[in-house]
Amino acid sequence: MDFASDNYSGVHPEILAAIAAANSGHQVSYGGDVHTEHLQDVFRSHFGDRARAYPVFNGTGANVVALQAACDRWASVICAETAHIHVDECGAPEKMAGIKLLPVPAVHGKLTVEAIAREARGFDDEHRAQPQVVSLTQATELGTVYTPDEIGTVVEFSHSRNMLVHLDGARLANAAAHLGLPLRAFTTDVGVDLLSFGGTKNGMMLGEAVVVLNPTLDRGLDYLRKASAQLASKMRFLSAQLVALLETDLWLRNAAHANAMAARLHAAVHDVPGLRVSHPVQSNAVFATLPPAALAELHARFHFYDWDESIHEARWMTSFDTTPEDVDRFASVVEAVLTPVRS
Amino acid sequence: MDFASDNYSGVHPEILAAIAAANSGHQVSYGGDVHTEHLQDVFRSHFGDRARAYPVFNGTGANVVALQAACDRWASVICAETAHIHVDECGAPEKMAGIKLLPVPAVHGKLTVEAIAREARGFDDEHRAQPQVVSLTQATELGTVYTPDEIGTVVEFSHSRNMLVHLDGARLANAAAHLGLPLRAFTTDVGVDLLSFGGTKNGMMLGEAVVVLNPTLDRGLDYLRKASAQLASKMRFLSAQLVALLETDLWLRNAAHANAMAARLHAAVHDVPGLRVSHPVQSNAVFATLPPAALAELHARFHFYDWDESIHEARWMTSFDTTPEDVDRFASVVEAVLTPVRS
Amino acid sequence: MDFASDNYSGVHPEILAAIAAANSGHQVSYGGDVHTEHLQDVFRSHFGDRARAYPVFNGTGANVVALQAACDRWASVICAETAHIHVDECGAPEKMAGIKLLPVPAVHGKLTVEAIAREARGFDDEHRAQPQVVSLTQATELGTVYTPDEIGTVVEFSHSRNMLVHLDGARLANAAAHLGLPLRAFTTDVGVDLLSFGGTKNGMMLGEAVVVLNPTLDRGLDYLRKASAQLASKMRFLSAQLVALLETDLWLRNAAHANAMAARLHAAVHDVPGLRVSHPVQSNAVFATLPPAALAELHARFHFYDWDESIHEARWMTSFDTTPEDVDRFASVVEAVLTPVRS
Amino acid sequence: MDFASDNYSGVHPEILAAIAAANSGHQVSYGGDVHTEHLQDVFRSHFGDRARAYPVFNGTGANVVALQAACDRWASVICAETAHIHVDECGAPEKMAGIKLLPVPAVHGKLTVEAIAREARGFDDEHRAQPQVVSLTQATELGTVYTPDEIGTVVEFSHSRNMLVHLDGARLANAAAHLGLPLRAFTTDVGVDLLSFGGTKNGMMLGEAVVVLNPTLDRGLDYLRKASAQLASKMRFLSAQLVALLETDLWLRNAAHANAMAARLHAAVHDVPGLRVSHPVQSNAVFATLPPAALAELHARFHFYDWDESIHEARWMTSFDTTPEDVDRFASVVEAVLTPVRS
Repeated sequence: MDFASDNYSGVHPEILAAIAAANSGHQVSYGGDVHTEHLQDVFRSHFGDRARAYPVFNGTGANVVALQAACDRWASVICAETAHIHVDECGAPEKMAGIKLLPVPAVHGKLTVEAIAREARGFDDEHRAQPQVVSLTQATELGTVYTPDEIGTVVEFSHSRNMLVHLDGARLANAAAHLGLPLRAFTTDVGVDLLSFGGTKNGMMLGEAVVVLNPTLDRGLDYLRKASAQLASKMRFLSAQLVALLETDLWLRNAAHANAMAARLHAAVHDVPGLRVSHPVQSNAVFATLPPAALAELHARFHFYDWDESIHEARWMTSFDTTPEDVDRFASVVEAVLTPVRS
Repeated sequence: MDFASDNYSGVHPEILAAIAAANSGHQVSYGGDVHTEHLQDVFRSHFGDRARAYPVFNGTGANVVALQAACDRWASVICAETAHIHVDECGAPEKMAGIKLLPVPAVHGKLTVEAIAREARGFDDEHRAQPQVVSLTQATELGTVYTPDEIGTVVEFSHSRNMLVHLDGARLANAAAHLGLPLRAFTTDVGVDLLSFGGTKNGMMLGEAVVVLNPTLDRGLDYLRKASAQLASKMRFLSAQLVALLETDLWLRNAAHANAMAARLHAAVHDVPGLRVSHPVQSNAVFATLPPAALAELHARFHFYDWDESIHEARWMTSFDTTPEDVDRFASVVEAVLTPVRS
Repeated sequence: MDFASDNYSGVHPEILAAIAAANSGHQVSYGGDVHTEHLQDVFRSHFGDRARAYPVFNGTGANVVALQAACDRWASVICAETAHIHVDECGAPEKMAGIKLLPVPAVHGKLTVEAIAREARGFDDEHRAQPQVVSLTQATELGTVYTPDEIGTVVEFSHSRNMLVHLDGARLANAAAHLGLPLRAFTTDVGVDLLSFGGTKNGMMLGEAVVVLNPTLDRGLDYLRKASAQLASKMRFLSAQLVALLETDLWLRNAAHANAMAARLHAAVHDVPGLRVSHPVQSNAVFATLPPAALAELHARFHFYDWDESIHEARWMTSFDTTPEDVDRFASVVEAVLTPVRS
Repeated sequence: MDFASDNYSGVHPEILAAIAAANSGHQVSYGGDVHTEHLQDVFRSHFGDRARAYPVFNGTGANVVALQAACDRWASVICAETAHIHVDECGAPEKMAGIKLLPVPAVHGKLTVEAIAREARGFDDEHRAQPQVVSLTQATELGTVYTPDEIGTVVEFSHSRNMLVHLDGARLANAAAHLGLPLRAFTTDVGVDLLSFGGTKNGMMLGEAVVVLNPTLDRGLDYLRKASAQLASKMRFLSAQLVALLETDLWLRNAAHANAMAARLHAAVHDVPGLRVSHPVQSNAVFATLPPAALAELHARFHFYDWDESIHEARWMTSFDTTPEDVDRFASVVEAVLTPVRS
């Protein structure tokens, strides 16, 4: 039992079954297979008739391919200072594609028009890498979720400045589960141009997809994927997983369960004296600050990551396979390490 | 049944079983799992005590990460004009890493010292991207196999010019099967510096590894893998496949079988009038030129690729799951389309 | 007359004379000429025996070449959020060299250890582009100047974290003039590893130099310069300018004059009601906020740039050829536009 | 006296005078000056009403900026195996812009449709970097000159394959002088899309220009120039040189003279026994093979470069300031070293 990351989990049994089922006979490689063909229907059912999905290996790959599709060579991308593309991808957007990032402050991981406006300037000034894309993360790296209105407001502002909107959806399903809305309600329907859809953290073995919602961005995406080393030869095994996740309600079940486990943990610990929850708990993460000694004691017994060591902030992630018993046991230990020993 | 590519095949049952077996409980992500730890032992058993393996997603990823590890920012890489890195990766080495390729003519896909020497010049001339790496493919894209001596000769020449030697081993197992030698006999033991080890074409679902044999090249490789979008979060599922392939003799069984099927096809068709085998058949491919009409007729009934349309050259690949019956049926049709109808 | 930029000026007559003098007969191209050879002595006399200078075309070129020399492929560079490399080079460091920048807040354009420490973290974490360089600007983009102690403190901290220190010295001479110190006092002597030395803004026609102070960074710099399109064929004409600037006290005369003109302007306007000087005036720039109407009126009569439009902040630059009369006339108009008309 | 390179020469007096004349008062930087404005008229007078010129620092810069303007991120560029962009720019196109080059054999440095067709394939295949540009050099690196018909034929073929045509015109003036035609006759009028216009080798101190002839390629070029470190702050001094070169017939006088000196050298040595001229002499270079001993003797007395050491081939360049006496003296020594000593 651990609360380190949703990628410590294995593969959901239904996904594993889909992989096995896809393993019959020969299939055309590089996406010419029946599973990848079917995948397009599945994505269209979620994201609308104009959506087009490109399976890739991982989140960094999805983000780098998507951003290239939306960026001229002279572009910059505005993102939250906490964005995965800025802090957790070893510089892949810069190094693979020369994309300049413009990180801006974000409260609870969420971009606002005010923050974006700080960098949405210098248009037509040749000295400035031109801001062409705003990249949001939904759910954010801090476990918060944008409402459709919040995303719509960012899109409206961005489009008014001729900037496209990309959405890093490594945990898009968790956001949908929190909002109780279909995926398109806060993507296609509010004008998002393209997104990275995450499967790995929601029960897949591996696999994400670049989903193009604005068809003008579709040009050259096949090449960008290949040139970014994100084209799987036996693609059927990525597509079959994505189909299994999205054709039934598995995506929602897994996400809703993970969210519920985070809510359960939050409920159990949020009023323990000495612990302070740092961010609204809206998906599958609880962030909390603890006294250093308690944090150390907890680390000695469980595997999890500190988010901001300078303020003794822990991040506890739940997953599709976290059990209520896991949560309860962990919560009781959290409580114990924070309770002063009585004499 | 088709002879299009060894990546039209699915996953070998033993590999699929290994994936399922790895799917129990939580494991530390990004390579901190028990399978990836064990993987190092397995690779050392094949490539020697100094070998270190870095699982990645695909062959392009393996090649680009490996070449970056061996290249200063001002480097160029000498390769065969038929090399996968030059003709089949959509420019990934150039686009992801700014690596300049210097393609040279190669007979049957094999580099020689004479060919390498054409571009192994201009050292210390600031106008010239400095040749720092020679990249061989084993088995080659044309189905031929270098002997250990041939590779040793290239290594010796390259090292004498301060160039490192990289080996693209997407079909390394097929080469070993052909040579009847352990993997290290034509890699570690003859001085190869680093290689891309291929699993996908030999029965895995996906997964390759950068294998560093010269420990001075190990520096920074973790970062290069991540910054190249090749770091799998649930890495255990790549590592478990590689372990399953390499810990038993599965790698050799699969490769030997595929080679045997190519040999069987070659034996059946090589003396059919009108067909000319273009390259020695030493691994799992048969290249042959046919009259255009016969080629067209064959294409109408089977899926395979033309290698060089200008000379009506077909490429027929076999795989671990090609059956003798597949081969015999295909060969009989080849013979039929080449046999003039008698009146 | 204008106060727009020190690059609105032409060429100092002594520089023009040096160009003409260098124009006799043939010289070996690409730096094999007598002027470039002599240049090394001149730079050593200023920066110490281990210094080595590489003439390049412009400041962006100098910075991008220097940063590449100091950065592994997986590096990031910490800089002020106001740094030229971040805000004014159209993303050249990212686009030409894949270098990730980590901008941090800076008061009056100056980095502090506290600000640097915000991003000097995540060492040995493969998810993070590794901070390997801290880049300071001296004098800063806001006209302020680091003391030798301030730079030394940054160097000490940076080196303790295995980070190198680069100095963008587009206006290095102005800093020396302000400090009343030789160039080496706040570069070589306090441990700076390499710098971009600026000539264009100090009276040259064009030309800067990458100056390597830490000899371990010299490796490959010739190639980096050429591959970054910064190698001049008739290099004698860059070198002769740099020699003319640095062999006599022309560099100091020009810079001291420009600084004096900024001080004169500051003295004349700093206590005019309605005007607020935004940053200490320590080199050749005055930054001031004005009421919007006054700013507009001033713009109607003079050419200068607004620095931060949101706070109505103007930037007034002086140059080697700014005259006291220019300053006095401009100051009197500033005063006039800020004086309420009496009835 | 030497025959090493046309960039061993200094600056033509008329160019130097133009620099001095441009040095009066302040001018808006980065191209907002009167000289750069006038430059557009001058270029239009040579290349037609739709031409637009962007001054840059050097030939590598011009080529890299031009190719980026014509290349999607997934593009490749077909060029002669002898092209400067391939052999003499330290990999700048690959390293600065990720552009993959596809070198093809070229007789006397000239591309033919047959050679281009070798690589003009694989369109719509995602595994292949898409050939989008054909880059010619006029005059070629081997001193030969394409006729307008030859260029037109390449353009027609390239356009029919949706490829654009770039022309590296480092010695464009020499080609015009040889052909006795205006510059537009073999560029604009035969459909060339964009070119690099060279000034440095024809008497300028430094400075080239990207000239866009196909207006659809103009988009973003300002940004590409800046992000490639090719934007001069005091641009008037580049533009004034280009104006001086092109507004009068100086460009033609200089080029015609250099060509005449090469022709004189060729006439004097071409039938000396033991010497073989390797390429037609059509601009300002003579290539010749000599016996090794004679070559060594010549090297001991003059500075010039060997082109292909393996065949003892020398390259002798003439320039705008080469004198007939220089040529005659050099030719007499060539003859002497090749004349067997009689006993």
